[in-house]
Amino acid sequence: MPFPTTPALTTDCVVFDKAGRVLLIRRKNAPFKDRYALPGGFVDVRETVEDACRRELREETGLKAGPLVLIGVYSDPKRDPRGHTCSVAFLTRTERADAKAGDDAAAVKWVADWRPLKLAFDHAKILRAAERLAPNLRP
Amino acid sequence: MPFPTTPALTTDCVVFDKAGRVLLIRRKNAPFKDRYALPGGFVDVRETVEDACRRELREETGLKAGPLVLIGVYSDPKRDPRGHTCSVAFLTRTERADAKAGDDAAAVKWVADWRPLKLAFDHAKILRAAERLAPNLRP
Repeated sequence: MPFPTTPALTTDCVVFDKAGRVLLIRRKNAPFKDRYALPGGFVDVRETVEDACRRELREETGLKAGPLVLIGVYSDPKRDPRGHTCSVAFLTRTERADAKAGDDAAAVKWVADWRPLKLAFDHAKILRAAERLAPNLRP
Repeated sequence: MPFPTTPALTTDCVVFDKAGRVLLIRRKNAPFKDRYALPGGFVDVRETVEDACRRELREETGLKAGPLVLIGVYSDPKRDPRGHTCSVAFLTRTERADAKAGDDAAAVKWVADWRPLKLAFDHAKILRAAERLAPNLRP
């Protein structure tokens, strides 16, 4: 491709259940190893950001995303200590609750209150924006 | 950067004036040479998508963007014939109307009705979404 180098494109997925709990994974790898994070990862070439979001959710938690709603785009050059990434964050629902850790996730958990947790990357910022977008999803 | 290859990150900027006209450039280079398009371009590493949007608007039209509102993220692998790009599109206003073509723009024009034009890339789709977001901006 004759393109200039641009920030690496990633996606993150916020999933709330009916009780307002959020689905978090525990990171298996650096950076932020062992910290809680949103399911997500790099977008493949020849894949839309929506498809990447659904794929990452499935790979890391075994769950199937419902309709995706765009939360925002997060491109602060310092958001990832490895280098510059830009994440497209989506909000979704899932029909099932039986998440199972896979791929880059050491564990997966439905969390009622994520605020006391030290989340990876800028995921607390993404979660705050998701809650503003879907206030009725929180108790 | 130890990152996998991801789609190239771009940004596009929809600017309406008070009369509801939209700011378009005429493309100087391939692909879509001579077609009308939204101002925009590639995001630099160590630059946020918002900063890239403001920079491209300034470089191509001489105008300064007002506050940016996210329209959407466009990542169809076929949107650019050169290869896979993902564009983050923003809506904005500008205080001044005296646009002046620069950089990749052969000409710049305020267009009252863009619908009869054959626009570059998926820019007609972006414009339709921008109009849905800001219906009061159209006559």
